[in-house]
Order: sequence, then C-alpha cells, then structure tokens
Amino acid sequence: MQGLWLAQQQLRWRDDLPNPQPAPGEALVRVRMVGICATDLHLCRGYYPFTGILGHEFVGELVTPAARAGQRVVGEINLGCGQCELCRQGLGKHCAQRRVLGIKNYPGACAQYLCLPLENLHPVPDAVPDTQAVFTEPLAAALEILQQQMPTPQQRVLIIGAGKLGQLIAQVLRLTGCDLQVCARYPQQQALLQRLGIPSLTETALPQRHWDMVIEATGAPAGLALALQSVRPRGTLVVKSTFGGNVTLPLAQLVVDEIRLQGSRCGPFAPALRLLQQGLLHPEWLISHQLPLAQGETAFALAAQPGVGKVLLQL
Amino acid sequence: MQGLWLAQQQLRWRDDLPNPQPAPGEALVRVRMVGICATDLHLCRGYYPFTGILGHEFVGELVTPAARAGQRVVGEINLGCGQCELCRQGLGKHCAQRRVLGIKNYPGACAQYLCLPLENLHPVPDAVPDTQAVFTEPLAAALEILQQQMPTPQQRVLIIGAGKLGQLIAQVLRLTGCDLQVCARYPQQQALLQRLGIPSLTETALPQRHWDMVIEATGAPAGLALALQSVRPRGTLVVKSTFGGNVTLPLAQLVVDEIRLQGSRCGPFAPALRLLQQGLLHPEWLISHQLPLAQGETAFALAAQPGVGKVLLQL
Repeated sequence: MQGLWLAQQQLRWRDDLPNPQPAPGEALVRVRMVGICATDLHLCRGYYPFTGILGHEFVGELVTPAARAGQRVVGEINLGCGQCELCRQGLGKHCAQRRVLGIKNYPGACAQYLCLPLENLHPVPDAVPDTQAVFTEPLAAALEILQQQMPTPQQRVLIIGAGKLGQLIAQVLRLTGCDLQVCARYPQQQALLQRLGIPSLTETALPQRHWDMVIEATGAPAGLALALQSVRPRGTLVVKSTFGGNVTLPLAQLVVDEIRLQGSRCGPFAPALRLLQQGLLHPEWLISHQLPLAQGETAFALAAQPGVGKVLLQL
Repeated sequence: MQGLWLAQQQLRWRDDLPNPQPAPGEALVRVRMVGICATDLHLCRGYYPFTGILGHEFVGELVTPAARAGQRVVGEINLGCGQCELCRQGLGKHCAQRRVLGIKNYPGACAQYLCLPLENLHPVPDAVPDTQAVFTEPLAAALEILQQQMPTPQQRVLIIGAGKLGQLIAQVLRLTGCDLQVCARYPQQQALLQRLGIPSLTETALPQRHWDMVIEATGAPAGLALALQSVRPRGTLVVKSTFGGNVTLPLAQLVVDEIRLQGSRCGPFAPALRLLQQGLLHPEWLISHQLPLAQGETAFALAAQPGVGKVLLQL
C-alpha cells in the first residue's frame, strides 16, 4: 500500500508498504483523511526516535469487522499493555509500555490502511464531515483541560499561544462561558479568534498576576515564563507544550502564590464528537491546505512553515 | 518590653523595646508561648530582609478588648491591605501589599506583647493546652493541602521529609484514612511516625511512579526530584518547601504524565483548632526544648541544629 515512511529523520512517500493485518480484537481501517500535527514535525526532527508510518490524527472507515464495513471512525491513539496497574485502572494512555499510533512502536495513519483495537475506535456521527472529524484527537486534547479543571463561568482565563492547538483550546473553553482571552502574535490568528468573538491580546499588553487560569500552548519555554507572570495567586497554569529537556522555574513563587501547575496531554474523544455533532466547534476554519497522500512530502514541508494553518492529507 | 530583635542577620534579646499600641480594630495580646520555625531560621540567615521582632507561631491571651481580657488566642499571620481585588475576594493572605507577623513589615511574636487585627484571632478551646495551641499555624499549613486536594481514602500518599512540618502533615493526612507512608531519614523521625502507626520508608526503598499524591516537605531541591520520580502518572505533587531561587524541572515529564504540581503555603486555623480540641492531633510530641524568652538566642541556636525537634519559648 501507499504511505509516508519516516526513517532517520527522512520522510518518504512509498507505494511498497505491506498491507497491515488486524490482530484479534482489532479493526482494519481504510484511512480517508489525516491531519499533520506539531508532534509529527517534531518526530521528523528526531525529537523521539521513531521509524515507520507517521500520523495519528485521522478519520477513516471500517473494512473489518465486516458487519460494520463502511462506518466512519476516528481512533484513540494510545495502546496500553492491558496488564499493568494503570491499564487496569483505565489509564492505559499512561501505561509505561504503551504504544502510540504513529508516534511510538506502532504504525501510523499516513497510509491507505491502519489497524487499531476496536475499543480505540469511535463512530463519527453523519452530521460531522471528515474535515471536522479529523480534528477529533486535538479537540480531545483541548477537552482534557476541562476534564482536569473546569473554569467557572465567572473566571478569567488566558490562553497563551494562538497556533492550531491554542485555537482549538479557545474554541472549547469558549463554551464554558468563562471570561476568555487569547494572547495571539499574528493578525491571522487574531482574525480567527475575532470570528469566534474571542478577544485577543498581545504579549506586551498582558496584565500580570491577573488570570484565574492560564493555558500555555506556545510550544516554547518563554511561553511558560509569561504564563507564570500572568496567573494570579491561587490560580492554575495548564501546560500543554512538551518542551524537550529541562525548564527552570521560580519554585518559591509557585509555593508562596499557591499556584497549581497542571500538565495536560491526550483527552476524551466522545465529548469532542458530541460538540462537533452539535455544531458548536469549527475546527475546519483552521485548514489551510489539503493535499493528496502522494504529495505528503510537500505537505509536511508546508506544515513546517511558521504561520501555516492545518495541512490535511486526503486519500 | 522584652523581645527578640533581628537586625542585619543578628538576633538579640532586648528589654528596651517599646510596648506595642493597638490600632483601631486591633487587639493587644500578651504572648504566652512561641514556636521557632524554619522560616525564622531562614530570616536569621537573610533569606528575606526583615528587621524587627521575629516569630509568628504563638499562643497568647487578650489584654484588649477589655471585655475579652484573659481569653487565650492564636492568630493568623497575614495582614492584607483590605482594598485590592484579592483582599476583597477573601484572599488577603495573597495580597501583594500584605504584611506578615514577624516575617514582613510587621513586628512578630517573640516578645511580651503583640498586636493583631481582631479578625486574625481565634479563641483557643479550654481543652487545648498551650503546648498544642502553639502549633496551630503550622497545622493550618498542613491542612491547606486538604483544602487544595483531598486524597480519597483508597489513595496512596507519600510524604517526603519527616522534619517538623512533615510530621504535622503526616498527623493531619493520617485522619483521611488514606494509605499514607512517609520517607524519613532519621531513626528519631521514624520512631515518631511509628507511635502514630504510620509506616516509614527510606529514600532508597521508594517505589517509582507509584503514589497518587506526593507531598514534598524536605526544604531541599533534591526532595523535589525524588518526589517527581515517585508520583504516578495523573498524580499530584504538593510542594511545601520554599526554595530560594530557581529550580530545574523535567517539564516534558510533567506534561506527558499529566502531573499536577500544587504550591501550598498558609492554611485555615479553625479546622486545626477543631482537630486539636477533639484530641486527634499530637503536635506536642515534636517538642524537644522549652526555654524562657530571655534565653531566646540559645533557643534559636538549638533550633538550627539538624535533627532537633520543636523549640519553644515560654513567657
């Protein structure tokens, strides 16, 4: 089959990949659309040693089980060992032995077919087009914030970073009714926020020690420093960026001001699909390019350019 | 009056200090007993520039208002400005302009008399002796952890550090029924825990990625690193130590494992007094020395020695 193969930080389109064979309990999925995400770009730069088919944001349709053939699905990306204490507690996404679709020890979605355990798959409601469903995984990551700490409608919430993840987080947090603002650098980002009625701020105009909740989604350590200046005493700082290496923090400030620092990663798919079905989210506004899988190398090069929106691969 | 005066990192007993004059809304308190705390020792080492009477852990009795003369009281140590947004939200202990008894811009308790706003004072129940009541402030700091995140009775909780604060935290957390263990270095510390039926562990025997909640109370950056290794994915790490300066953290681990890092400082007095009245806490087991105020310089030297329990000053 055709697919995008990463080896030694080189991504190549290939048409000689073997078709995957579903193991017992797994479904065979024909991929319809894949989104390129910052993590994919990090993997191409060697952030984590991965060799194989890239891609983890996808929408596809079932080939097997035959009784459900043709059903559109999206899929959770973590595969726990099923045996350890975390897996038995339902925390397989934190299993130390986990494999992760297109990220760690498991072939990804930038290919004609993929396999996933049936329990990882969620049917896509008819009302949700592929161009929305393909955002389910990052929307779930945005919803994880609410799973960890729901802001009250009266709280002041700041998102720092208005890239793709920051925009999806803004779309989700907007629904809580909280007093939401976003620190956005580029006019394009500010325009997207304006379309949703969300006020944007620039870095230089950020009130300090002011926000009940600050979400750091910049992908850069400087964003974290800005977040620490912005959060009020007793406030919460949600960290979404996975910086490589160590970061230096003024820990005494964190203790004296009783700040809560909350790491946040993958989230629940079901509420993301519900909100999409109800027409409350518009992730498709972020799409800047759609290319065929065969132009995958070009698509990745595009996605790596600063300021470019979401790049999708079509099959 | 007599008191212990700190100036330029020199602590001196003096008998020429002026008697304090209560402002409107303030009470005049005759001090009965003062506890020496790690913060006092840090102040003596210049951790924070403070000149004046030291001490913030005390029990005393009211001189004024006259109608309540003789009533034993303990006192909350933070004095907010009363005007700012945080003060208006009842968060005066986080007011940026706050004064703090014996710590910041306000004379402390190591003296015959002190003044505090009436709203800062809590009557001490008759059943609670001075040797327990003098621990109300650090017990409140321990209770702040429960105020921020209550462990469930089935959760595994680890306290790292079994000094005075660690012991008080252990006494408070024990009451939740949680599966509590304490990482304790010294036989003396372990014996105190054993008396409460709390198992202790040594650093080398700590299971990694295991604990639902880890409380760091060592006062040293190495304790924080140990805590990060010990907490399980999705777990909570409460930081009680106020390290000077910056600390380096593996932030990617915090995000990938979705750890919650919770800074924690001063807490509520009322529940501390309730638990003392009900005989559920035994802070007096930590007392190692009781000296008269006039021997305050000796008492501070004693308290600075490693492994020494609580040193109290009597008036």
